Amino acid sequence: MTVDDFAARHIGPDADSERQMLDTVGYSSIDELMDAAIPEVIRWHGTLDLPPAASEEETIRELRALAARNTVAVSMIGLGYHGTHTPAVIRRNVLENPAWYTAYTPYQPEISQGRLEALLNFQTMVTDLTGLATANASMLDEGTAAAEAMTLARRASKTKSPVYVVDADTLPQTIAVLTGRAEPLGIEVRVVDLDREALPGEFFGLHVQYPGASGAVRDHGALVDAAHAAGALVTVAADLLALTLLRPPGEIGADIAAGTTQRFGVPMGFGGPHAGYLAVRSGLERMLPGRLVGVSRDVDGNPAYRLALQTREQHIRRERATSNICTAQVLLAVMASMYAVYHGPDGLRAIARRTHTMAARLAAGLRAGGVRVADVPFFDTVTATVPGRAVEVVAAAEQRGVNLRLVDADRVGVSCDETTTAGHLTAVWAAFGVPEFTGAVDPALPADLARSGDFLTHPVFRSHHSETSMLRYLRRLSDADYALDRGMIPLGSCTMKLNATTEMEPVSWPEFAHIHPLAPDGQTAGYRELIASLERWLAEVTGYDAVSVQPNAGSQGELAGLLAIRAYHRSRGEAHRDVCLIPSSAHGTNAASAVMAGMRVVVVGCDADGNVDLVDLDAKIEKHRDALAAIMVTYPSTHGVYETGIASLCAKVHDAGGQVYVDGANLNALVGFAKPGRFGADVSHLNLHKTFCIPHGGGGPGVGPVAVRAHLAPFLPGDPLAASGDRPAISAARYGSAGILPIPWAYLRMMGAEGLTRATGVAVLAANYVAARLRGHYPVLYAGNKGLVAHECILDLRPLTKATGVSVDDVAKRLIDYGFHAPTMSFPVAGTLMVEPTESEDLAELDRFCEAMIAIRGEIDRVGSGEWPAGDNPLSNAPHTAAMVSADSWSHPYPRSVAAYPPGVAPAGKYWAPVRRVDGAYGDRNLVCSCPSPEAFED
Amino acid sequence: MTVDDFAARHIGPDADSERQMLDTVGYSSIDELMDAAIPEVIRWHGTLDLPPAASEEETIRELRALAARNTVAVSMIGLGYHGTHTPAVIRRNVLENPAWYTAYTPYQPEISQGRLEALLNFQTMVTDLTGLATANASMLDEGTAAAEAMTLARRASKTKSPVYVVDADTLPQTIAVLTGRAEPLGIEVRVVDLDREALPGEFFGLHVQYPGASGAVRDHGALVDAAHAAGALVTVAADLLALTLLRPPGEIGADIAAGTTQRFGVPMGFGGPHAGYLAVRSGLERMLPGRLVGVSRDVDGNPAYRLALQTREQHIRRERATSNICTAQVLLAVMASMYAVYHGPDGLRAIARRTHTMAARLAAGLRAGGVRVADVPFFDTVTATVPGRAVEVVAAAEQRGVNLRLVDADRVGVSCDETTTAGHLTAVWAAFGVPEFTGAVDPALPADLARSGDFLTHPVFRSHHSETSMLRYLRRLSDADYALDRGMIPLGSCTMKLNATTEMEPVSWPEFAHIHPLAPDGQTAGYRELIASLERWLAEVTGYDAVSVQPNAGSQGELAGLLAIRAYHRSRGEAHRDVCLIPSSAHGTNAASAVMAGMRVVVVGCDADGNVDLVDLDAKIEKHRDALAAIMVTYPSTHGVYETGIASLCAKVHDAGGQVYVDGANLNALVGFAKPGRFGADVSHLNLHKTFCIPHGGGGPGVGPVAVRAHLAPFLPGDPLAASGDRPAISAARYGSAGILPIPWAYLRMMGAEGLTRATGVAVLAANYVAARLRGHYPVLYAGNKGLVAHECILDLRPLTKATGVSVDDVAKRLIDYGFHAPTMSFPVAGTLMVEPTESEDLAELDRFCEAMIAIRGEIDRVGSGEWPAGDNPLSNAPHTAAMVSADSWSHPYPRSVAAYPPGVAPAGKYWAPVRRVDGAYGDRNLVCSCPSPEAFED
Repeated sequence: MTVDDFAARHIGPDADSERQMLDTVGYSSIDELMDAAIPEVIRWHGTLDLPPAASEEETIRELRALAARNTVAVSMIGLGYHGTHTPAVIRRNVLENPAWYTAYTPYQPEISQGRLEALLNFQTMVTDLTGLATANASMLDEGTAAAEAMTLARRASKTKSPVYVVDADTLPQTIAVLTGRAEPLGIEVRVVDLDREALPGEFFGLHVQYPGASGAVRDHGALVDAAHAAGALVTVAADLLALTLLRPPGEIGADIAAGTTQRFGVPMGFGGPHAGYLAVRSGLERMLPGRLVGVSRDVDGNPAYRLALQTREQHIRRERATSNICTAQVLLAVMASMYAVYHGPDGLRAIARRTHTMAARLAAGLRAGGVRVADVPFFDTVTATVPGRAVEVVAAAEQRGVNLRLVDADRVGVSCDETTTAGHLTAVWAAFGVPEFTGAVDPALPADLARSGDFLTHPVFRSHHSETSMLRYLRRLSDADYALDRGMIPLGSCTMKLNATTEMEPVSWPEFAHIHPLAPDGQTAGYRELIASLERWLAEVTGYDAVSVQPNAGSQGELAGLLAIRAYHRSRGEAHRDVCLIPSSAHGTNAASAVMAGMRVVVVGCDADGNVDLVDLDAKIEKHRDALAAIMVTYPSTHGVYETGIASLCAKVHDAGGQVYVDGANLNALVGFAKPGRFGADVSHLNLHKTFCIPHGGGGPGVGPVAVRAHLAPFLPGDPLAASGDRPAISAARYGSAGILPIPWAYLRMMGAEGLTRATGVAVLAANYVAARLRGHYPVLYAGNKGLVAHECILDLRPLTKATGVSVDDVAKRLIDYGFHAPTMSFPVAGTLMVEPTESEDLAELDRFCEAMIAIRGEIDRVGSGEWPAGDNPLSNAPHTAAMVSADSWSHPYPRSVAAYPPGVAPAGKYWAPVRRVDGAYGDRNLVCSCPSPEAFED
Repeated sequence: MTVDDFAARHIGPDADSERQMLDTVGYSSIDELMDAAIPEVIRWHGTLDLPPAASEEETIRELRALAARNTVAVSMIGLGYHGTHTPAVIRRNVLENPAWYTAYTPYQPEISQGRLEALLNFQTMVTDLTGLATANASMLDEGTAAAEAMTLARRASKTKSPVYVVDADTLPQTIAVLTGRAEPLGIEVRVVDLDREALPGEFFGLHVQYPGASGAVRDHGALVDAAHAAGALVTVAADLLALTLLRPPGEIGADIAAGTTQRFGVPMGFGGPHAGYLAVRSGLERMLPGRLVGVSRDVDGNPAYRLALQTREQHIRRERATSNICTAQVLLAVMASMYAVYHGPDGLRAIARRTHTMAARLAAGLRAGGVRVADVPFFDTVTATVPGRAVEVVAAAEQRGVNLRLVDADRVGVSCDETTTAGHLTAVWAAFGVPEFTGAVDPALPADLARSGDFLTHPVFRSHHSETSMLRYLRRLSDADYALDRGMIPLGSCTMKLNATTEMEPVSWPEFAHIHPLAPDGQTAGYRELIASLERWLAEVTGYDAVSVQPNAGSQGELAGLLAIRAYHRSRGEAHRDVCLIPSSAHGTNAASAVMAGMRVVVVGCDADGNVDLVDLDAKIEKHRDALAAIMVTYPSTHGVYETGIASLCAKVHDAGGQVYVDGANLNALVGFAKPGRFGADVSHLNLHKTFCIPHGGGGPGVGPVAVRAHLAPFLPGDPLAASGDRPAISAARYGSAGILPIPWAYLRMMGAEGLTRATGVAVLAANYVAARLRGHYPVLYAGNKGLVAHECILDLRPLTKATGVSVDDVAKRLIDYGFHAPTMSFPVAGTLMVEPTESEDLAELDRFCEAMIAIRGEIDRVGSGEWPAGDNPLSNAPHTAAMVSADSWSHPYPRSVAAYPPGVAPAGKYWAPVRRVDGAYGDRNLVCSCPSPEAFED
């Protein structure tokens, strides 16, 4: 090991371990293993053209230099992005705490109660503030939340009209995203200035912004009534801070509310990531897309949280799905919810009042100075008319360190926020050329628009207002959970590997955190250089020609890639090509994305080895030759196999005029050894939170750049404010989740070509090591060349389940008792576990896992032999809580010690699940999606 | 609450809670309570003259501005302070993690196993590298470690000589500290150039630096033999990084090794805090001062760590103590130990080799360019001779961003370190005016000086070299411990209150972290302004005229204050004044400090109410009138009482020509309401880690500024490199633990006069609330005016112990089962618990504590009634571990549920102690102070 070698820190096994693992697998070197595993037809033998690996310290130095090229100005641009103070206790103990940021999506609810509670707080915060019945646990941003609201309205509306009316005073990026989403679905977005124009005769939905982009606060009651009379649903895109003072959408009859929670303590980050929100009135809750947390109970009847209504999600519904949303913005939603917990209703109201008072004072000063300000109620944003002088005023403000919104040549927008000071107002007045204003202002809002009644009444919003109490609440919640900081999370396809601290640290720096996405270019040179080099490096790694980082989740990257294919065909006069071939083994999101891109899904079968059935492929191509738009395949396959037919598959599709989409979910098995852009694919999306070390954050943020060959480059998403049919906006912000792009940048910078390649090799070695060690205990499903798997392996439980009744669930939950997060359950094959050890787990942890699985196999055998009854054994009762094993009575046919301390588990340091097995179905039948009363937890 | 009010975040109870607490205590307002509690004779009715409270964001902005006025240059000055890379995983998960930094000193070993293990690693690291038998768990810095070595040598040597020989090539600040410490103790420090001069005939000890300050690596073997022949002990002040390549002190026969671990990943921080170390050969271990971690066992026979040999410490030995050391540098020692764990022996050797190679290349380049470099072996430091040009060379280097050491007009010192790059060498060569050197170098060290044999062989130093593994190790250790992030730590006199994140964040900023203590003034303007304002504010708060922040622990502040008194008397021709009156209730450190300051301790009795017995005081003054130097009192008293006689006490001592030292340990009960400098005291030390929010860090760092009235100001410690008899060096660095001074600065800046005053009032209210709620269940010992306590209250267990056999220990350990850290046990009165709730605990937590204490009283009664036998009850068996309550068998006369889940303790989220009650005596009899083998933990 050289002292500065980050790769040796990132990669778990050292040279001795690697030797031992190779011996077990039966190869003499990683090169030899990879030569055997990867089909030569796709193998790439070059060295990635990346800068030589930098040490952690050099990387930080370079990032500091890039950060120094950004300018942190006071951004009063508004448009959905506002300055906010992240409470330091939340920044340090959530955003900067691996217990939160390395957690996985809470699919295993028993070991996710902490973040599920935080998300339930989020949902309660949103429903309380919007006055609606049910909110989900975060959307990707306001634009995509609005798009989901639009499609939800279409599903729920009884009218047949394809028209969706959008008020002209809506955020421009939201209009862009709506427009981009609508077109492939046959929805007609009609932007109407509802101050001046009437509603059309027929429409299925109406979208209004509240307050408007101009700042105007309108009483939308009459519009809502009119829309309802027309059979349409109404979405109100509402600012949650404003809602602490304004009548909530629910009170005026809105069906849906959508928006962002960014200004609740989440830094702007040059556009993201932040948590969007979506809430619906009673009756629509089962149509909500995205992740929804609900209250259920465990087998002992204690309250327990878990994800609700999962059967409506895209991974179940596939081509019948109505949304492709997978990832949410959990880490950011947690931050926003904790901001509300920390401030409480009184604190939020105080922040809102101060913000509004600043805006009122600003307006009064402008008016006193002779500047025309529209005579409408406003909350935080003022639009001033300065005929012909807008450019000049905005420039003068920038000179004074303040960014304003250039609406047009005559108008300037100014938004106040939590961070606005008297000094900022002085600078703005000076920019407008008006004198300092010292008169009195009346910040009252019109009575008919003012909120009455209490909100955030649950005790959680009234208990943690001191930093000490907040700190302990955060610790208590995170202690309930199992994240990468405790042990291995061997999730197949999800790649839970190291999120290095050096990668994470820059995210908190002010020069990355506090940049408005519409800040002038002169203030964002560092960011844009970072993004340009990241896009260049990702293109090199994947073999593509162009990359866009805009999609802020893998699902959005899929959609972007498919829309690029669609636009490409149209550009060639082949708009009729609309069939998307998808293998039966594909992740459900693929099909959902294809539908959203206006394509028809045609499924291609798999053969007995799990590979795409090339015969069926021929048949499907033949059948749909003229209509063939694309094929979407995952490589290595979702079965964890390097399929040898991939090159031939690409050729067949290309020959039929189709495009090849390779889902980049498993790119970590290719980096340095094969490039999709070179072995036949035209487009891929990447999951930066998988291969490139953005942490999962408990279920987001994800980042899903789309990478294409040159002929598709003209169709990549660009600036949402300059979107077109060819380049639709995928996400609200130009660079998506820019604020976390320093993470993959740092990873690539520190690993270099050699480190990245070695990581791939060790990941494949680790998967084959696990397969080799466990093969005698569980059948390993599917393999490629020479019986090798790629970066993950599927353990087949079905024969054991059939023989003993012990299910995949039982094994997954029993692994909790052994101190592990379960592998992926029943994907891609029901009744199996898919294990992806990744390169970051060292041999000691790999062995601990293998030994646990072997011990569990022994336990299964004791059930099988009848020693333990089928319904009452350590597997069926898992996970065992501390309360259970220390209860006064114990009536199970195995001792407490077997329950609590199976082989390899020491009492000191044992992780205890806080609840027993959660009954998901109960919760779905009795849907509760906001904080239960404290009494619910009493015995 | 206003939005920006930090005081409302720092102070736990809100207005409603405050009202409820006042009702319970029986006062209508905090003002009324304080009027009743504080004797009018000391009451100060003004408003502190401090800047108006700033918000957290404003404070961070101001600190960033101060930071920007420091310049982070490349410091190659050496002299015991070196650039180092703090591994990011350690920075984030130790230095920036409240689970580590808010922990208390591990006096309750059952809930401190994590940090005790880390400290045992530290001791093992030191003993392995020094080749000695036993190391303690950190000293305050190298200078004070060397001073402790000197006094240890004196105690251990059989010679009567007062002479301590110090080699001239010792760090100058070490010589200053040794000289300052020696004089009051009658030790004569003789600095000898041992390259040229012979050892004196008689001496009790010898101190050599290895490598020397000049960089020279000498074979000290002959000196050691000569010293031993003279009956003297030898201290080798050794650089641990160099020891990875050089023969360790133990091999050449050294008796003691002392030094710093700063360069093991701890930022320089303008001088501190860093962990010093002290190690001794076999046979001296029971004479070691400071905190020593040892391996013992719990009542079940499992290995368990705890502080060893505590009976030799100053709080037990008082005026017979040989050292006043209390606080160690635990947080920094943990960091340094983790640096060794993360790099392992191979990594450390690699770092050392690279460092040495850089130095060798540097020297070769200088020689090639015609610069004379001493022809001696060196490790990292080169002294170059440039006759008459040294100032010019140093200035030229500074121009190039590199700080060098100006030895004298002709010589320049250059030290390489882990961070040195080829570019740095180029800059240094250019500064010397020599060309870039590209030749080959032979970095070999002379064979007779080279280390042979392995070190750090324990598995812990060979297991956690990947970041993933390191992260989990840190999490696992911190999970074993109870810190403020879990719940209340109601330690009397220790003031465990909020350490706010905003106070902590700047500590990690490079502009504060990476500054060498001897950096040119032009690079430290921000630091020095911060320190100047902090000293000014502390003077205002205490009513003194001058403050020095140099003492890096309260004990050092005491010594500094007493030495100032001593120098003052001498300056007035009253050198004979050497009696220090100390009340019997005083903390043992007071007496130890007095002895170290060359004073005779005379104890003054206390009356039945715990107050200083003024009659006895009169008698003692009368008896020692001519020799009276000082009185040391704590105010409020260690009994937690505002003694009304304080003003009279001060007057009596002053009248007799003595000075009044008020120990500032309890200053948090005075801030805003009384000023020691105004009610009669001449000098105080403050504990910034108590009143001013520096976190305890698991037992350090502490910071103990000394504050004096004007007549003592000329005797405050100043620059150690310009120390004199009147102004001796107390600590090695000019500003002590400068790196953490942003913490109290931020606290004062954010609280302002009003917030600080309110904090005092709420702290007193909280103590009286606890006293009022518990008085019916436990007698509350001592009270002042109107039966009120000050900021803490003493619960008397003695009658209950007598009646039931349930001891203070039993209650303290049972509190662990209830989810609390115990209060202070048996101080200042044996058989009692002293509770200090502080202002930061909210009412819910105060009530939780009171209810636990009341429930425990009920448990005691069940023992008393005979329902539970004396030797087998929930109290005597506490703490109960998860292993115990989930064991297959249970034979106790109370159920498991009572053991594990007493009232108020929910199963989910319960904190489990990892070991049962620790047997301290066993460990002291069988002293093991380095890492036990893994087999020791097997069943």
